[in-house]
Amino acid sequence: MIEAHDPIVAPATASGGAIAVIRISGDGALSVCDKVFRGRAPLTNAAGYTVHFGRILDGERVVDESLATVFRAPHSYTGEDSVELSCHGSAYIVSEILRLLLAAGTRMADPGEFTIRAYLAGKLDLSQAEAVADLVASSSRTSHTLAMNQMRGGYSEALDALRDELLTLASLLELELDFSEEEVEFADRERLRTLMKQICERIERLRGSFALGNALKEGVPVAIVGAPNVGKSTLLNRLLNEERAMVSEIAGTTRDVIEAHANIDGVVFRFLDTAGIRATDDKLEQMGIERTMSSIERANIVIYLLDATAPSYAAPALRDNQTPPAAPVDFTLHDGQTLLTVINKIDLAPAFPIPAGAIGLSALSGAGIDALRTALRASVDTSALYHGDTVVSNSRHYEALTAAGEALHAALASLSDDLPADLLSEEVREVIRRIGAITGRGAIASDEILHNIFAKFCIGK
Amino acid sequence: MIEAHDPIVAPATASGGAIAVIRISGDGALSVCDKVFRGRAPLTNAAGYTVHFGRILDGERVVDESLATVFRAPHSYTGEDSVELSCHGSAYIVSEILRLLLAAGTRMADPGEFTIRAYLAGKLDLSQAEAVADLVASSSRTSHTLAMNQMRGGYSEALDALRDELLTLASLLELELDFSEEEVEFADRERLRTLMKQICERIERLRGSFALGNALKEGVPVAIVGAPNVGKSTLLNRLLNEERAMVSEIAGTTRDVIEAHANIDGVVFRFLDTAGIRATDDKLEQMGIERTMSSIERANIVIYLLDATAPSYAAPALRDNQTPPAAPVDFTLHDGQTLLTVINKIDLAPAFPIPAGAIGLSALSGAGIDALRTALRASVDTSALYHGDTVVSNSRHYEALTAAGEALHAALASLSDDLPADLLSEEVREVIRRIGAITGRGAIASDEILHNIFAKFCIGK
Repeated sequence: MIEAHDPIVAPATASGGAIAVIRISGDGALSVCDKVFRGRAPLTNAAGYTVHFGRILDGERVVDESLATVFRAPHSYTGEDSVELSCHGSAYIVSEILRLLLAAGTRMADPGEFTIRAYLAGKLDLSQAEAVADLVASSSRTSHTLAMNQMRGGYSEALDALRDELLTLASLLELELDFSEEEVEFADRERLRTLMKQICERIERLRGSFALGNALKEGVPVAIVGAPNVGKSTLLNRLLNEERAMVSEIAGTTRDVIEAHANIDGVVFRFLDTAGIRATDDKLEQMGIERTMSSIERANIVIYLLDATAPSYAAPALRDNQTPPAAPVDFTLHDGQTLLTVINKIDLAPAFPIPAGAIGLSALSGAGIDALRTALRASVDTSALYHGDTVVSNSRHYEALTAAGEALHAALASLSDDLPADLLSEEVREVIRRIGAITGRGAIASDEILHNIFAKFCIGK
Repeated sequence: MIEAHDPIVAPATASGGAIAVIRISGDGALSVCDKVFRGRAPLTNAAGYTVHFGRILDGERVVDESLATVFRAPHSYTGEDSVELSCHGSAYIVSEILRLLLAAGTRMADPGEFTIRAYLAGKLDLSQAEAVADLVASSSRTSHTLAMNQMRGGYSEALDALRDELLTLASLLELELDFSEEEVEFADRERLRTLMKQICERIERLRGSFALGNALKEGVPVAIVGAPNVGKSTLLNRLLNEERAMVSEIAGTTRDVIEAHANIDGVVFRFLDTAGIRATDDKLEQMGIERTMSSIERANIVIYLLDATAPSYAAPALRDNQTPPAAPVDFTLHDGQTLLTVINKIDLAPAFPIPAGAIGLSALSGAGIDALRTALRASVDTSALYHGDTVVSNSRHYEALTAAGEALHAALASLSDDLPADLLSEEVREVIRRIGAITGRGAIASDEILHNIFAKFCIGK
């Protein structure tokens, strides 16, 4: 399948709009369309980047009046001859046109097949192709910026610069091999060590950006924890402005972890609503508490919710300022997690003294909720993203960088052990391969890798 | 709002696809787009029917890479300068581009506003504009053919021919007025009567086609009736190939009339699942039976379902061949309704003698269901549609034709009463006005009529 140029077809728009677009690409795409589309002149005679009005015909029967946009190889998304048919947005019409085009000699495109062709034609590298899917899926300013930076090649450039330095390093080492009888050292070992350490740091910085990149792409995970009945579900509903979680007066109602997304000032937060934390014999509830613990583990931000009308729970948190209480159930934060202490139900206990650093609010009335939104947004530092730093958001890239880092550490160890140049160079080559796999540069990616990447694409892309 | 040419914008595709299209139309549409879209050259310099690659910019920030298709007045859908922006199909990107275009000096289009402009520019008449909405909504071969015939103007031509004849008639009568002192009769009264009767017949034929047209557009209504537990819901599910209705062994389960659509060989059938018919004291169930009776009233086709394992119910229907039984609850058919007698559960009573004209099947296993599908399809005569006859499917048109018919009957009565030419001509003019209202010809439709017609359109059309 991978290196094919046969004409493929797919709907490129979702059904239900005023218009629908059907995309055809491949060798003979124009002449295939001419069997179905009748304009003033054949599309095979048309110049690229022109639009033509005509009729979609099934024999004598008019299926639709539509517009055909012609793209000529190599000036198209896929690099092939392509046509986009813009028709009336009826599901029936789209299915009829697809039926006619399939009969005329096209086949249905696999998910992402148009973009695979763009990659194979050298229009995009692999990380840019992956960014196309991220861009289509982007739902917030930050996830959009991540995808756009990656699609526009800024990320690939950073990786290419790394790769070029490594290539120079490897070449110097390999030069020594050619002159091995003369025992020269073209690559000064101290300079080599400094360079490799610098590259290590850069790889580590890229790896380190994944926590932010992944959180921005998938939504920053936030766990809302607290004793039963402090109002966790009510707070979640308030943050979402809609009724997602079941809210009830009965203690221990919320047994499932509910995920819900909310966009606050361009950042998507993924709220993990959790079972109330308390000592219990109820087996089902205990399972809920285990899930809560795992939510806390995965969260970047933990909202610890206390009840102003139940100061016995609240007291420990207030005493040692911002540290969660030992009772009724304990939890500890790990490095990099942000704790937001929130006192709920302040409308019912207006005299309650809100300590410095904590946020007082009423989840029910909404009073004070904006302060929590502001605190949440401030907990995510997106300045790197907007200052042009390269941020890794793709787990495939993260894994490749991790492997590259490990290979580089091995090379550094070999350098310390004074191992010969050929061994060193082999280890540097491994780092180059790992980095190259991210953009698909250096060697065309295998069918299996391409399949894994593009199977996640939507049809028509 | 109606005669405006200010630049309007709307998404033209549903969200969720690989690409999305945003439509801009009106005076200055190209220069507005140039504030947001940066290609190789300004769109204001571009020729019509050309496509341009470029970036959507929010200041320095790249929102998307997209294609802009330029249409120059009057060669566009609306007759105005127009641009279609084809961007990545992310809801975030679409909302950002709309935000930028609104800030650049456009406003969100009302539903159908692009098509209103096409109508006011003389690109379409009213019935053609209405057909655009029908075409977008069409979900079957027949509803598509109906809309396509109407959009391509075949229907308008038939009405125009009628209108031309009436205009000749009115002119002849009005000529007499100019010579009223000379008492001439330019319009021979007998010829006039013959002509008016012919036109009456044509209007009646058009009105008569509405039963078919409306059924094809909305789905042919089919009522499935029968005693409790004969398997009505199971049969419906079988016809739909999915579990829509609640199926249960408890008599009287189905209390609500459920509507479901199925496409059989290009015709959409609208199945009205009904409460089981039997004498009952249950108030809720009695309400269900009343609804059943109203379903039967509205249905074009009634499937009378009998149970091969309960011959006591079946017996009356079989005795007088095709006539529904008097017990347990009676129903009568009106003119033009088709009755299909179906014997269910034949797998449980294989020896049951299926009478001629009835269909034996097992709703549970699906055996025999194709015979029912064939019978349903054969009950709808679509030959008129495919032989180019004009079929009325729009209730606004039906009402206008009804009013035209009444005015013409009044004119015929006046003719018999030997009333003077000025009165006669006024009555003929009323018929012309009614016919003209369908296509909007003769006079531009009022804002109120336009609003009523186009408010039902989707955004972006």
